[in-house]
Amino acid sequence: MKAIYMDHVGTNPVHPEVMDAMLPYFTEYFANPMSLYESGIKAREAIEEARTKTAALINAKPNEIIFTSSGAESNNFALKGIALANQNKGKHIIVSKIEHHSVLNSARFLEKSGFAVTYLPVDKYGLIDPEVVQKAITKETTLISIIHASPEIGTIQSIAEIGKIAKQNGIVFHTDSVASAGNIPIDVETLNVNLMSLAAHQFYGPKGAGAVYLKGGTRVVPLIYGGIQESGRRAGTENVPAIVGMGKAAELAKRDMQKRTDHVRSLRDKIISNALKIDKVLLTGHPEQRLPGHASFVVEYIEGEAMLLLLAAKGINSASGSACSSKALKSSPVLLSIGIPVHLAQGSVVFTLGENTKNEDIEYFNEVFPQIITQLRKISPYSKGWGEMEDPTCTAKK
Amino acid sequence: MKAIYMDHVGTNPVHPEVMDAMLPYFTEYFANPMSLYESGIKAREAIEEARTKTAALINAKPNEIIFTSSGAESNNFALKGIALANQNKGKHIIVSKIEHHSVLNSARFLEKSGFAVTYLPVDKYGLIDPEVVQKAITKETTLISIIHASPEIGTIQSIAEIGKIAKQNGIVFHTDSVASAGNIPIDVETLNVNLMSLAAHQFYGPKGAGAVYLKGGTRVVPLIYGGIQESGRRAGTENVPAIVGMGKAAELAKRDMQKRTDHVRSLRDKIISNALKIDKVLLTGHPEQRLPGHASFVVEYIEGEAMLLLLAAKGINSASGSACSSKALKSSPVLLSIGIPVHLAQGSVVFTLGENTKNEDIEYFNEVFPQIITQLRKISPYSKGWGEMEDPTCTAKK
Repeated sequence: MKAIYMDHVGTNPVHPEVMDAMLPYFTEYFANPMSLYESGIKAREAIEEARTKTAALINAKPNEIIFTSSGAESNNFALKGIALANQNKGKHIIVSKIEHHSVLNSARFLEKSGFAVTYLPVDKYGLIDPEVVQKAITKETTLISIIHASPEIGTIQSIAEIGKIAKQNGIVFHTDSVASAGNIPIDVETLNVNLMSLAAHQFYGPKGAGAVYLKGGTRVVPLIYGGIQESGRRAGTENVPAIVGMGKAAELAKRDMQKRTDHVRSLRDKIISNALKIDKVLLTGHPEQRLPGHASFVVEYIEGEAMLLLLAAKGINSASGSACSSKALKSSPVLLSIGIPVHLAQGSVVFTLGENTKNEDIEYFNEVFPQIITQLRKISPYSKGWGEMEDPTCTAKK
Repeated sequence: MKAIYMDHVGTNPVHPEVMDAMLPYFTEYFANPMSLYESGIKAREAIEEARTKTAALINAKPNEIIFTSSGAESNNFALKGIALANQNKGKHIIVSKIEHHSVLNSARFLEKSGFAVTYLPVDKYGLIDPEVVQKAITKETTLISIIHASPEIGTIQSIAEIGKIAKQNGIVFHTDSVASAGNIPIDVETLNVNLMSLAAHQFYGPKGAGAVYLKGGTRVVPLIYGGIQESGRRAGTENVPAIVGMGKAAELAKRDMQKRTDHVRSLRDKIISNALKIDKVLLTGHPEQRLPGHASFVVEYIEGEAMLLLLAAKGINSASGSACSSKALKSSPVLLSIGIPVHLAQGSVVFTLGENTKNEDIEYFNEVFPQIITQLRKISPYSKGWGEMEDPTCTAKK
């Protein structure tokens, strides 16, 4: 059966060159990088080479890269690590309402631990106004964390401007770049960030490999204590193959960035222009300032889950920003934050493209997508309007 | 050149069958296990199969297994997660002095956060007296964490007895089984534990895969917040290949346990009996109640690091429990705890065997090891005695 993968923001296959780079470290150079014999030293060198390559992807210094196990770990580490390291200075942090759950739930954990958290609003495109950031700053503020690009609506924030404000106020600034790193050019100096979270599987590296960029001189409390791995900032036997894979994937992402983005952007634009011809289909997120391979919509009168299942039956694998359709069973806070009403938020779908997405895939998709919407609207109890219910699809599940 | 690997407690190669099991999940079934299409469902099913296999290794129920990225993460999660979840009941925890750094440093973090920690002493074999545990319990105690087997001296604790005391007192009991799980038979029911930490690379699984056994009904605060992976207790996109690998490795460990332990135990006994013939070489840890493939010694008048380097030159890869020879540059708290003086602790070496260790490897080792000791003692400034200095080798580094 046809299988067209349009969920690249969900995860990616490991690139063949990345796989080749990783393989020797599972069975041949498997030794513990802390050991003194040759194969251990080889593993240690491989980690440092990967660190250099990962740093190069975002214009950081190698010693500013701390490897973790995932973007979620990186976000937890950044939020809690900075808040705790600076709690004597103040106990206020600022995040946006459209952060990833790993940031939002870390912020909530800090609230329970006695910190105050400001959750910044966004405009209808999901953009945070840098002036709103400025206004939220108090004498107690020690950390600002703003997501770089939303995996759900694709919007890319004005990180450099927000970073400038943080810098002027002497506040540590973290950005969650899990969805953006490896997919758009990033320069940590230009962006004025002190910390950045990355995940390798977002750019054809392996799952199980993430990183935190920690600007030199920034104090942080570890999330995982133990041995002296990662200069004592993240303990645990290094996942050497995954780290090597992340380095290789970073190298490829840097090398192929322009080619990849040109490719997915042109295909994405075809999806968007086609979808917007359909009645009552709305693009979510910013029309231009968005991830190059990212198209996201809400479709009135239909549940995202139903679309996903019918698309899957046609060989198209995609995701929904709405959470009735994921396993979380809650309305998406991101969509609510940009002003999408609860009932509409249920009709959310996200299509994300990759370097292997073909032009013919998108032609096929553009044929199938409107058909599925027509088919579902025929049987939708809401196709004559949503009626009086505020949340007709998800009420029981909330 | 000859390369005999005698550092199996440091880490292990991935077993060929484990590698075969993992491979399809990097490139073919790479989809996010949270997604609704077929390849995502396949990844989800693979995780659940791995969970069942990992549970079976320690006689747990599948829903009592939480996958993590490492033994260190598991230990941090257990210590902080249980302490925080129960802080309204009390703020006292009990650990031993010979815990792994990931436990000790988590305990120190909790001390800084307002918890009281009792560090229990051990006897000359590294054993914790269950009566000493009983005496340390206060009304405020919410957690006892005792290492199952020491990677440094091999001693296996009387976990079941300690667990019985914890149970009688209604206190949550965690054991760090990173060095033991997969290497000796384990039954969480018999051991009376509420939590257990495991790491896949200790039994021929991949690095980057660990687990926490969490007895049904035990409340815990997550270490990594985010999505609803692992039933909301450990967020982050699942490292599917690594989890699959851990499951396969657990299956093999269960299947081959008897064969593997018989094999390494007989070889280990040859090492011990040979080494103890050498003048002023002392076995560390318990003579019988120890990991089957584990032989550890202190050698008077010599630095562990020098031994490791000469052994490596002869093609024998091994480790030192002493920390002058690892990258940590501190005296081993484990050796000091069992009463080894600081200067002797510098002469520590650990030899750990695996299923591929050959009889001829050990014959060769048994020939080489005494030669190296003789060679080093000839040039040792301390070979006529340590003199007055308490710590002749490490002072500058401490």
